[in-house]
Amino acid sequence: MAIWPDEDSQSKRLYERGLKVYPGGITRLVPWLEPFPVYTKIGKGAYVTDVDGTSRLDLLNNFASLIHGHANPAIIEAVSKQLVLGTAYTNPTEVEIELAELLCDRIDTAENVRFSNSGSEAVMSAIKAARAYTGRPAIVKVEGGYHGSYDYAEVSLDTPKEQFTTPPKSVGYAAGVPDRLLEDVYVIPFNDPETAASVIRAHRDRIGAILLDAAPSYLGFTPVSSEFAASLRDLATEIGAVFILDEVISFRLDHGGAQKKFGVKPDLTVLGKIIGGGFPVGALVGSKEVMQVFDHRVGRPLVPWSGTFSANPMTMTAGKVTLELLTPELVAHINMLGDQVRAGLTRAFVSSGFPGQVTGVGSMFKIITHQRPVYDYRSQRHSPAESAAMMELQRMLVLKGFHVSGAGMGFLSTAMVAQDIDNFCAATEECLRQLPHPESGK
Amino acid sequence: MAIWPDEDSQSKRLYERGLKVYPGGITRLVPWLEPFPVYTKIGKGAYVTDVDGTSRLDLLNNFASLIHGHANPAIIEAVSKQLVLGTAYTNPTEVEIELAELLCDRIDTAENVRFSNSGSEAVMSAIKAARAYTGRPAIVKVEGGYHGSYDYAEVSLDTPKEQFTTPPKSVGYAAGVPDRLLEDVYVIPFNDPETAASVIRAHRDRIGAILLDAAPSYLGFTPVSSEFAASLRDLATEIGAVFILDEVISFRLDHGGAQKKFGVKPDLTVLGKIIGGGFPVGALVGSKEVMQVFDHRVGRPLVPWSGTFSANPMTMTAGKVTLELLTPELVAHINMLGDQVRAGLTRAFVSSGFPGQVTGVGSMFKIITHQRPVYDYRSQRHSPAESAAMMELQRMLVLKGFHVSGAGMGFLSTAMVAQDIDNFCAATEECLRQLPHPESGK
Repeated sequence: MAIWPDEDSQSKRLYERGLKVYPGGITRLVPWLEPFPVYTKIGKGAYVTDVDGTSRLDLLNNFASLIHGHANPAIIEAVSKQLVLGTAYTNPTEVEIELAELLCDRIDTAENVRFSNSGSEAVMSAIKAARAYTGRPAIVKVEGGYHGSYDYAEVSLDTPKEQFTTPPKSVGYAAGVPDRLLEDVYVIPFNDPETAASVIRAHRDRIGAILLDAAPSYLGFTPVSSEFAASLRDLATEIGAVFILDEVISFRLDHGGAQKKFGVKPDLTVLGKIIGGGFPVGALVGSKEVMQVFDHRVGRPLVPWSGTFSANPMTMTAGKVTLELLTPELVAHINMLGDQVRAGLTRAFVSSGFPGQVTGVGSMFKIITHQRPVYDYRSQRHSPAESAAMMELQRMLVLKGFHVSGAGMGFLSTAMVAQDIDNFCAATEECLRQLPHPESGK
Repeated sequence: MAIWPDEDSQSKRLYERGLKVYPGGITRLVPWLEPFPVYTKIGKGAYVTDVDGTSRLDLLNNFASLIHGHANPAIIEAVSKQLVLGTAYTNPTEVEIELAELLCDRIDTAENVRFSNSGSEAVMSAIKAARAYTGRPAIVKVEGGYHGSYDYAEVSLDTPKEQFTTPPKSVGYAAGVPDRLLEDVYVIPFNDPETAASVIRAHRDRIGAILLDAAPSYLGFTPVSSEFAASLRDLATEIGAVFILDEVISFRLDHGGAQKKFGVKPDLTVLGKIIGGGFPVGALVGSKEVMQVFDHRVGRPLVPWSGTFSANPMTMTAGKVTLELLTPELVAHINMLGDQVRAGLTRAFVSSGFPGQVTGVGSMFKIITHQRPVYDYRSQRHSPAESAAMMELQRMLVLKGFHVSGAGMGFLSTAMVAQDIDNFCAATEECLRQLPHPESGK
C-alpha cells in the first residue's frame, strides 16, 4: 500500500487536485511540506491519520490551537448538543457570556471581553481600540514578533539580513504594503529596554500602542525578561499609550496566561487558538477603561465591532469546555512534558553531534538547526542552509511518524503521555544522525 | 411566564450578566436591540426560540449567513460525521479541495481559491493581493459600501452629512484611524461612472484595486447598473488595477453569484457568509494570474497567507453541503419570496399611510423609513428621527414574533414558505399603523 510521499499515494492524488484550484496547490502557507502535503483524514487524541492510513504523533495540534488534542470526547459531547440547536444566531447566547466570565475569572487584567473570529482579527481590534483610546496612529512592535495577518502587526516579521539597522527599521511583510503604513509602525529589538526606551520616547506623541508577545514564536519562544516587561509597562504609562500583550499562542503557559507566568501587566490582551476549543476564535480582553471604546451606550461607539461569526455558540461551547478541562494541574503536566522534550532533544543533539539546539518554554518548543545563542530575532535567524536542514528534518520526521512544523516548532497537548515524548526524541536523534550538517553562518 | 423585554425575563437576566463582562453588555454591535437583546436558545428552520421560550420568524439568519435556515438536517448529519474525526488539523484535507472545486465550477471568474476565517479577512487578503500584484498602495471604494472591519475597506462607510463633498472625501470609520491610511483610499459615489472615471484617472498611478459590492447593503441593496459595472471593469483594465467584487452577502443572488446576475467581470471575488454553511468562513477567488501572489513555489510568496482555522474541515463540510443543496431552483424560490416580501411591504406602507418604502433584490430586502428615491449612500441615508423610527419598528416586530435588523434589513432562507412572508407583511402593516411618523428631512 502506498504511503506519503509515494507518487501513487492518496496525498499525491489530492495535491494534484489542489494544484488546479489553489495557488501552489494549498490554501494555508504554513503547513507546507516538501515535496507535497500529507492530507489528513482522522484526528484522535495525540495522533492524526492521513488519507493513506498512516498514523503519526501530532506535535502541531493545528498550530497550537488544540490543547486537548483531537476529538476530545467532552468537547464532542458538548458541541454535538449545540449543533442540533443551530451553529450561529444573530442574537447573543448564554454560552458567550459563560466563556467571557471564564476568561475574566482566569486572567488578572481581564475586566471586559470582545470576541472575533481569529487571532488576526483580535490583534486588529486591539490596535483599533488603542488608536481610538489615545487618538494616536502609530504602534510599536518587536522585530520578528508574529501577530497574525493585519499588515500593521506584520511589519518587520522577517526582515532580511541586508536590511538590519539599529534601531530596526520598519520593513513590510507582504509585497506592496503601503509606505504610509510603514510610517505608523516603530520596531524595537526584543528584551532590549534601552533601545525600546529610546525609540518609544522619540515618537511619544504618535504612539498609541505597544504590542508584545511574551514568548514570541519566531524568536524561539524566548521568554520576555522581567526587566523588559516592566520597562514596556512603564513606558506605555509614561507616554500614555496602550500596552497590548499578544497571548494568542502563549496563553497556554499558565492557568492565568503568559502574563501570570512572566508578571506582565498589559492594558489589553489578545487571545485565540486554544480558547476556541478547536473552532475559529479570537478575543480581546482588558481594562474597562480602554474597552469602553467598543461601548455603544454613548451613541455610536468609537470602534464599532461585530463580526458575522464572532462568539458563535459552537466556538463558545467548545472553548468553555476546553478551559474547564484545563486545570492548573494539567497545565503543569504539559509544561513538564515540555521540559521532557527539551531535555530529550538536547541529548539528541549532543549524542548525534548535529550542530543544533532546542529552545522554548512550557508546552512549546522549537528545534533550531544552529548553535548560536538565541535571544532575539536576529540571533534566532537561520541561514538558508540551516532553514533547509530544518525542512529536511521535518520531512524525515514525517516519514518516522511525527509532525512538527517546517520551522521546527511543536506544541504539546494534554492527550500526550511521556512515552510519546520519548518516542519523538528517539526518532529525532536517529534523524539528526543522518541529517547533513549545514554550513555554519548567519 | 415572563417574555422579552420584561424585567424578570431570562433575556434581562443574561443581559445583566453580559454587562459585567462586555463593554455595553454585548460582543457584537449589529444585533443590538432596544432596550436589551433577545438571547437565543434554539434555532430550527426558519424560526429561533429565545431563552424565555418565545419563538420568532428569523428574517436575519445570522446576518445573511444561513441560506437554509437553522439546523438543516443534511448539514447537521455531514458535520456530525466530521466532528468525531476532529474539527481542525494542521495539514490539508480532501473536503477543502471539494469546496474549492465547487466554487470554481460555480463562479465564472474563479480559477483559484484562498480561504480565510471571515469576510473581513477575505477582503484584507484581496486588497493585499491587489497591492502585491500591482505594486500600488491605494484602493478605490464606493461611499457607504460595507466590506467588513479591515480599516482600509471601512473608509467612508458612514460619512456624516456635514462632511459630504464632491467627489466624496475619505472619512475614517473607527475613531483614531491613521490619516496616512485615509490617503490610500479614494471614494466614489455608487452608480456614477463619470465621477468614478474622473477620480480613478486622477490617481491612476497609485491605485492598485477597485472594490465594489454589486448590491451594497448600506445602500438599500441597490443593484449596480450595467453601465457602472462595465465602466469600473474598463477603468481597472485601463489603469492596470485589480477589480475586486465583494460578494460576501450578494453571492446568494444567483447560482453563479452576483457577478452572473449583474454581468460583472471582476479579477477577484470575495466570499463569506453562506459558503461556510453556518460556520466561520471567508474566501477569495479569482484569476490564476492575480492569485499567483499567494503561490509559494517561487520561493517566499509575495503575500504569505495562512490562518489557523482557515479551511478547517467543519466549515468546509458545512459549506460543501450547503452549496450542493442550493440548486438554481432553490435560489429562484427564495428570490421569489423576496419579490413577495417587497410587494407585501409596499402594500403595507401604502395601506398604513406610513411614509416609507422597501428596497432590495433577490432574497434581500431593506425597510426604509423615508420616501425619498434611493440610488446611492446619500439618498438612502436616514435622518436621526427616521433611524429611530426603524429601531422602534424593529422592536415592535420582535414583540409580534419577527426578527429584522435595526437598520431594517432582512435575508430570506430556503426554510421559509410563502405563509411566513404573508405573516411578516401583515404584522409589519399592523406595526406601521401604530408607528409615529418621523419628521421628514435628511
